[in-house]
Amino acid sequence: MQDGKVRELPGVRKRALGLLRVALVVGALAAGSTLAPHAAATGMVYPSEAGPLRVTEVARGLESPWALAFLPDGRLLVTERPGRMRIVDTDGRVSEPVAGVPEVHARGQGGLLDVVLGPDFARDRVVVFSYAEPTTRGARTAVARARLDADGLRLEDVRRIFAQDEDPSGNHHWGSRLVFGRDGRLFVTLGDRFHHRERAQALDSHLGKVLRIEPDGSVPADNPLAGRADARAEIWSWGHRNVQGAALHPLTGELWTHEHGPQGGDEVNRTLAGRNYGWPEITHGREYVTGRKIGAGSERADVAAPVLQWTPSIAPSGMAFYTGDAFPQWQGNVFVGALKFQLLARLVLDGERVVREERLLEGLGRIRDVRQGPDGRLWLLDESGGRVLRIDPQ
Amino acid sequence: MQDGKVRELPGVRKRALGLLRVALVVGALAAGSTLAPHAAATGMVYPSEAGPLRVTEVARGLESPWALAFLPDGRLLVTERPGRMRIVDTDGRVSEPVAGVPEVHARGQGGLLDVVLGPDFARDRVVVFSYAEPTTRGARTAVARARLDADGLRLEDVRRIFAQDEDPSGNHHWGSRLVFGRDGRLFVTLGDRFHHRERAQALDSHLGKVLRIEPDGSVPADNPLAGRADARAEIWSWGHRNVQGAALHPLTGELWTHEHGPQGGDEVNRTLAGRNYGWPEITHGREYVTGRKIGAGSERADVAAPVLQWTPSIAPSGMAFYTGDAFPQWQGNVFVGALKFQLLARLVLDGERVVREERLLEGLGRIRDVRQGPDGRLWLLDESGGRVLRIDPQ
Repeated sequence: MQDGKVRELPGVRKRALGLLRVALVVGALAAGSTLAPHAAATGMVYPSEAGPLRVTEVARGLESPWALAFLPDGRLLVTERPGRMRIVDTDGRVSEPVAGVPEVHARGQGGLLDVVLGPDFARDRVVVFSYAEPTTRGARTAVARARLDADGLRLEDVRRIFAQDEDPSGNHHWGSRLVFGRDGRLFVTLGDRFHHRERAQALDSHLGKVLRIEPDGSVPADNPLAGRADARAEIWSWGHRNVQGAALHPLTGELWTHEHGPQGGDEVNRTLAGRNYGWPEITHGREYVTGRKIGAGSERADVAAPVLQWTPSIAPSGMAFYTGDAFPQWQGNVFVGALKFQLLARLVLDGERVVREERLLEGLGRIRDVRQGPDGRLWLLDESGGRVLRIDPQ
Repeated sequence: MQDGKVRELPGVRKRALGLLRVALVVGALAAGSTLAPHAAATGMVYPSEAGPLRVTEVARGLESPWALAFLPDGRLLVTERPGRMRIVDTDGRVSEPVAGVPEVHARGQGGLLDVVLGPDFARDRVVVFSYAEPTTRGARTAVARARLDADGLRLEDVRRIFAQDEDPSGNHHWGSRLVFGRDGRLFVTLGDRFHHRERAQALDSHLGKVLRIEPDGSVPADNPLAGRADARAEIWSWGHRNVQGAALHPLTGELWTHEHGPQGGDEVNRTLAGRNYGWPEITHGREYVTGRKIGAGSERADVAAPVLQWTPSIAPSGMAFYTGDAFPQWQGNVFVGALKFQLLARLVLDGERVVREERLLEGLGRIRDVRQGPDGRLWLLDESGGRVLRIDPQ
């Protein structure tokens, strides 16, 4: 009986959201020029239903910034995809590169990717980061942990705790986001490496998977496929194309992710243990250029339906559940950055459903990451503009 | 620019919600027998998207209960429309009638109506209540304040602080809900007395109005029509048909109300100072029996559009914004009881919009009032069954 209606009515839910989407698009078109920003003394101002938003440029001059993490002292740790990590302080000063970052495969979408603080950072100063690691044959997504020294000048005791089991050539679809679960285990989201999409359904491969590992890289005994000889024990869920956004739901503690579809079919998913998310057999997306159908449709009984799908694709990256006080009306909302569509999507949830979407900051830049700051503001990385941005109510 | 999209897109908003409504009704039909309750050891259990709800009968044997208020000691003050006020304690004992309630006109929809505690109840034990007051000519809605004695046995120092300026015959559409604003002023919601609906547009009449008065009945100097010779200074807003639900928005502190339409056109309204809500000139409702159009349509520039309208009418009564911990997924939702439809409507807000509706407890009874208890649960009055009910997660 639990969640009875939700499970029984997937068709209705999708229809309702589809209709809502039509109405929202009509609305966006009708709103016309109100979507254009105008300059203000303290930054750019963009409209929103919650009132004008002030966008403050906290720092600039970064090269393809990919991820940001808040240090307890209020400074930011920022990765640049070419392979640098920097500290950005509150008045916008950008440090020299932090020493000790391993060599990365900085080609295509590859390079230095996510960074998060360990759960005990205040005590042990452990940070965890992901990157495309070069190998003799090609490259693969890897995860390392290290200690950030007291001055934030270098990484010490750098240890790789995970590397994918396949290292094909090609420079696309590495994932990856890192999220510590409430139990201290680390979720690692991965991509299908583009030319190898069928491996997203193969349980003996790390491609196209979300993983769950211990902070030292070992495998939790209660992982859904642990003990199976034909499967990688690190796997938490499979059938993913390229997951570049992940966050814990603040009420349930469950992992939510989103992923890029090909042409259409970007998805937001409640990402549950042992579930198949369908790629490339079940998808709303189509082939690039030809527009041909992919797989066997968009629904199948054994495949978890997305909470939301975007067609056309917005190209999502970064994800944050908002719980702050700066925007009380947004509490419980999910924020997702968009690269291609250059916007910040605000998703309104009702329990496990997305019931509404507002598109914010359109045209601001390729939003690579979005996080809630300790100040209750939203913080963004503008990948194309090389900027750290803060969003405040005006 | 503030709220730009919201104000510019009323058509789109209505369309989106209309489409959503269709999808929701389809969903309700598809869900079929899951809507039927089943008995459980601890009470009736009803389904919801948040999981099963347990409905506990706290007290029974009341006659047309109309309003409930929580005393600081956990007991409830409950009105019965025939003219009695009683104390219900936590183990379900119902007291003898509290002494000192004035004579009421207990006919049709008239009688003893709402009750609320004064803002300083813990210190002064002041309660405020509304009722249909008999006059030599007919009757009118009145509001009184009194001190509840320490034992809860009697009202002392009962003083009428307000009476409507018209006292026609007829027994319908008295309102009335009482809500203290954050500034300590008292909102009083009134009806149009059914046969006098055109008076809802007359500013020299109290019929079909929401009022704002001081706790002693005097008129705040900053009321929107204060100082106008041709208007009643108590008026806060007009063009209301029969408002039987009102509550403050927990974030904005603004007054929200709902009202009964005739045949169709029940409304939820952000109820702002000096605004016209249209009745009977602008409405989504139609005449009883004949189904004829009423007034001049459903939109007009000077008339505030409803946040939500229900056609067909659910016959709403009682209203609560949920802010408790018992149902974390419901925080920020609005709950509205329904008489004719015998259900509890859960409305999901995004800022000032209703973006989704779930219908709960269908067939449970005529829900006359809904309040959030100090325990974070929802408490209901089942008017038809004479019961006080508490809703818990199972």
